[in-house]
Amino acid sequence: MDTRKHIEVCFTPGEYDYYKDEYEIVVVIDVLRATSAICAAFAHGVKSIIPVATIEEASEYQAKGFLVGAERKGQIVEGFDFGNSPYSYMKEELKGQDVVLSTTNGTKALDIAKDAEIVVVGSLLNLQCLSEWLEVQDKNVLCLCSGWQDKFNLEDTICAGAICEYLLGSGKFQSDEDSSIAAKYLYLSAKDNYFGYLKSSSHRRRLKNLNLNEDIKYCLTPNQHDVIPILRNGKLVQI
Amino acid sequence: MDTRKHIEVCFTPGEYDYYKDEYEIVVVIDVLRATSAICAAFAHGVKSIIPVATIEEASEYQAKGFLVGAERKGQIVEGFDFGNSPYSYMKEELKGQDVVLSTTNGTKALDIAKDAEIVVVGSLLNLQCLSEWLEVQDKNVLCLCSGWQDKFNLEDTICAGAICEYLLGSGKFQSDEDSSIAAKYLYLSAKDNYFGYLKSSSHRRRLKNLNLNEDIKYCLTPNQHDVIPILRNGKLVQI
Repeated sequence: MDTRKHIEVCFTPGEYDYYKDEYEIVVVIDVLRATSAICAAFAHGVKSIIPVATIEEASEYQAKGFLVGAERKGQIVEGFDFGNSPYSYMKEELKGQDVVLSTTNGTKALDIAKDAEIVVVGSLLNLQCLSEWLEVQDKNVLCLCSGWQDKFNLEDTICAGAICEYLLGSGKFQSDEDSSIAAKYLYLSAKDNYFGYLKSSSHRRRLKNLNLNEDIKYCLTPNQHDVIPILRNGKLVQI
Repeated sequence: MDTRKHIEVCFTPGEYDYYKDEYEIVVVIDVLRATSAICAAFAHGVKSIIPVATIEEASEYQAKGFLVGAERKGQIVEGFDFGNSPYSYMKEELKGQDVVLSTTNGTKALDIAKDAEIVVVGSLLNLQCLSEWLEVQDKNVLCLCSGWQDKFNLEDTICAGAICEYLLGSGKFQSDEDSSIAAKYLYLSAKDNYFGYLKSSSHRRRLKNLNLNEDIKYCLTPNQHDVIPILRNGKLVQI
């Protein structure tokens, strides 16, 4: 009997229902930019992040005095403290704070996955550290890509493919789904030059139009932070 | 202004709603095996194919005296004349006939796409012939992959990627969606050896277990037939 655990990939939150019940760990990925911003925040001393799916919830927290980030379609929502630029989360005033975050795709994916046994946050920034941790958990792992407005996106898939490649290489994991195989292939073509590979990616182009090149470079530079954000009682904290 | 038309890829029928309204032509793809069987049928003289989504509809046609193919999960449904093996559609008795077909994924995708202006059937078997035809239509094209039980599959995506590569190469088309870019990348890695590339594909493995290796080889051998099945008044006919 094959006792290896599964590492699989779900391309969009909309498909999560077809996958969910077989995995103890869900890794939520939104490379540009929500889960990258979350990793950056913990690396720079933020105490916790409360992900909320809607702007209404974000406003309620703001009314209670929380620092609140809210982003839709790549831009800061009017009236909020910041969006989902990783650089916004490196400020001195955020150290030790509980921060609230609502984004177009990433926090929705966190919301959809919240009933899984373990929900962690993945990005290229914490790729190595997260993969090593996943390797020793002895649990089935699903990478849930946040996508872009319910559609497939390339950068989340490549990040998921990198996690697949690492865990399959350990010999402790197997992949059955075609989505996982495709993610791995896409990662292998992309790994030597994320920036070049993703230059035609729709979301990257969209952010470029918003002059967010610095953010993109930061988010596509792997292994900058040894952090693993994990969801506990509705709050992301460091593991 | 960029006047090029769009060639894009939708990975699963479940995501079709996010794409549909912008494309005049939808190419329905189910390489293993529905749309391959449909191409084989027309190449061997079948007059028309009536795709039906449910077994109930298939039974109603059978009661009226039609020859009916019905497949679920790779096997012929009990009581029907054949399943979706391309070889079933090469028989003398089917020449000139109207045939009814219901399959796990492919005919569902045809059903979902039926309100598009033009619906045609794609497979590796008619790749070149279909691509050349699409090139001169001056319309936006969406490749709708049938997937496997609502999930992504590799062989349909690679076929869609081949169509993208051809049309983008003509200079008359552009792709914006990340799914289209990924499909093209996957096709480029696969094109020299479909069989080897797809050896780890879940659906291929599933068919192999059912001893359908001959079917798989046939379906993965490109450009065997110069046919373009098109949907007209609920019936597939040759263009």
